[in-house]
Amino acid sequence: MRVALLGATGLVGREMLLTLEQRRFPISDLVPLASSRSAGKKVTFAGNDHEVLEVRADLFDGVDIALFSAGGNASREWAPEAAKRGAVVVDNSSAWRMDPEVPLVVPEVNPEAAGFHKGIIANPNCATIQAVVVLKPLHDAAGLTGFSAVTFQSVSGTGKAALEELSANSLARLEGGRSKTTVYPHDIAFNVIPQIGGIDGDGVSEEEWKMVRESKKILSLPEIQVNCTAARVPVFRGHSEAVTAIFEKDLSPSDARRILEGAPGVMVVDEPGSNAYPTARDAEGSDGVYVGRIRRCTGGPGLMMWIVSDNLRKGAALNAVQIAELLVSRGERNKMV
Amino acid sequence: MRVALLGATGLVGREMLLTLEQRRFPISDLVPLASSRSAGKKVTFAGNDHEVLEVRADLFDGVDIALFSAGGNASREWAPEAAKRGAVVVDNSSAWRMDPEVPLVVPEVNPEAAGFHKGIIANPNCATIQAVVVLKPLHDAAGLTGFSAVTFQSVSGTGKAALEELSANSLARLEGGRSKTTVYPHDIAFNVIPQIGGIDGDGVSEEEWKMVRESKKILSLPEIQVNCTAARVPVFRGHSEAVTAIFEKDLSPSDARRILEGAPGVMVVDEPGSNAYPTARDAEGSDGVYVGRIRRCTGGPGLMMWIVSDNLRKGAALNAVQIAELLVSRGERNKMV
Repeated sequence: MRVALLGATGLVGREMLLTLEQRRFPISDLVPLASSRSAGKKVTFAGNDHEVLEVRADLFDGVDIALFSAGGNASREWAPEAAKRGAVVVDNSSAWRMDPEVPLVVPEVNPEAAGFHKGIIANPNCATIQAVVVLKPLHDAAGLTGFSAVTFQSVSGTGKAALEELSANSLARLEGGRSKTTVYPHDIAFNVIPQIGGIDGDGVSEEEWKMVRESKKILSLPEIQVNCTAARVPVFRGHSEAVTAIFEKDLSPSDARRILEGAPGVMVVDEPGSNAYPTARDAEGSDGVYVGRIRRCTGGPGLMMWIVSDNLRKGAALNAVQIAELLVSRGERNKMV
Repeated sequence: MRVALLGATGLVGREMLLTLEQRRFPISDLVPLASSRSAGKKVTFAGNDHEVLEVRADLFDGVDIALFSAGGNASREWAPEAAKRGAVVVDNSSAWRMDPEVPLVVPEVNPEAAGFHKGIIANPNCATIQAVVVLKPLHDAAGLTGFSAVTFQSVSGTGKAALEELSANSLARLEGGRSKTTVYPHDIAFNVIPQIGGIDGDGVSEEEWKMVRESKKILSLPEIQVNCTAARVPVFRGHSEAVTAIFEKDLSPSDARRILEGAPGVMVVDEPGSNAYPTARDAEGSDGVYVGRIRRCTGGPGLMMWIVSDNLRKGAALNAVQIAELLVSRGERNKMV
């Protein structure tokens, strides 16, 4: 397969290269692309250096799969171009996710949706992916009617500059020195910022709307009631989420645990007696969606749980590569061609 | 007033001294007390050094008010002694909070309860205080039927050793070096630990039970449905909470904002268009309970909000001193004497 990668030098782009390599994705040619700002840089794949080219329409000629992780504007501009030239775009931005013509796919949840693409498949929001991977098998058993998620999201979702801001400002606080807040509106060091993305006139942030809208689309459950508070925490990598889920049928914690132990992509870490539950640091660099603290609500029906995953892996790069694998295994190609 | 302070050398004890001084509490004699481990240390109050004495029953003779912040075991041992000798104990531990004979008081919420003490008044859990200060005026307007709180709690609630562990482990991660986890079961640096206190057989932690049970007692609303996930975040000082509240009557965000702007102890910081909402760092060392991100639920009825307060101030020392002030203003003394 000829694989293009737009946004090859970003945090997610580099994680995609690592994931493609680790999973031995069948690549014959790699075409690493970026904006003019990053063109000319080198990326390493399977032991070889590749020069990153400035994105251009004709570079998508002959490309089978184009992985995009270069932001919404680049996706809006280049995804239709790439699709027109025969590539299937797996896009990590939010540009196409809610387009009714574009499947929004988590391979453990709705792999069938990938079959109905018109050249673009959207990779969901990181925080949403890890929630639905856990909620889907529980829904199949008991009928999900709604959930609320409060997220503790790491700075790597924002990009490299955010990692640097967290490091620099943490040192400034620990050793004396001036903090700079250029990436975030408030100092993220030893703080919690209850805002991810812009906040609309109803007071809801973009990230919160992503959780609400994308989860309904991925699960094909437009009627469920979803609430979200999305917060940024001073963690480098790995998102944690406190999720409360309500079901039509009663579901005991032990049944939920048993169901999740057999669910694809899910790892149950839930032995509170020995302080075993997932944490972001433990999930760094690993592929699973980890769940623990599974318990009944103390007020009203439903189950509460704690869901952790590496936002650069399952939340971004891994999920995109899994979608590409789905395409390969089904012999899928762009159906518009 | 003769005021004893048990636990004078701890984080909360020192904050109590500062608060007594700042609020010009009418103290004629200060009796700083501690366990044998800390006896002999000095504390400063109003410019004078005071030697900390090892706690002994007769040291409570003649004491009017005894502020306790020395943990549950010390409270169970010494609070009845102090009360027997005529002091009114304001206890910051969890030892007496759910005792039906002991009022659990947040002066902005249930000041009248302080009148019914039998020598011991309990100061509630830090995370619970800031939630009920905001929920009470909303309840008065619209009838609270339940709420869920997901907490982002700072390490200062654990004590001085936790501040040091967060500093040391953060430096270890930033500059290379070995982390030690002696205070917490997992590394707290750049991580989130979804456990505060022991976890019981139902999977619920002690801190979560405190939110559930104490809020009902303080608000005198035993029937409300309360859910909580309590998590520790790498923040030195200040607890943040994502709270969703359900009411009998419809309550709009603008009505809630107006009510809260007039509520005692509450500061509304809620201009999302200019990224204005409370954060833990902004709340450090200040007295208010700050609330922002007030919005309607996207799924179902109710309001969501973000509540922040300094856990050592309103969450502990300030609330205790306010209870002492209530006693002074009412001329309250131990009714058992």
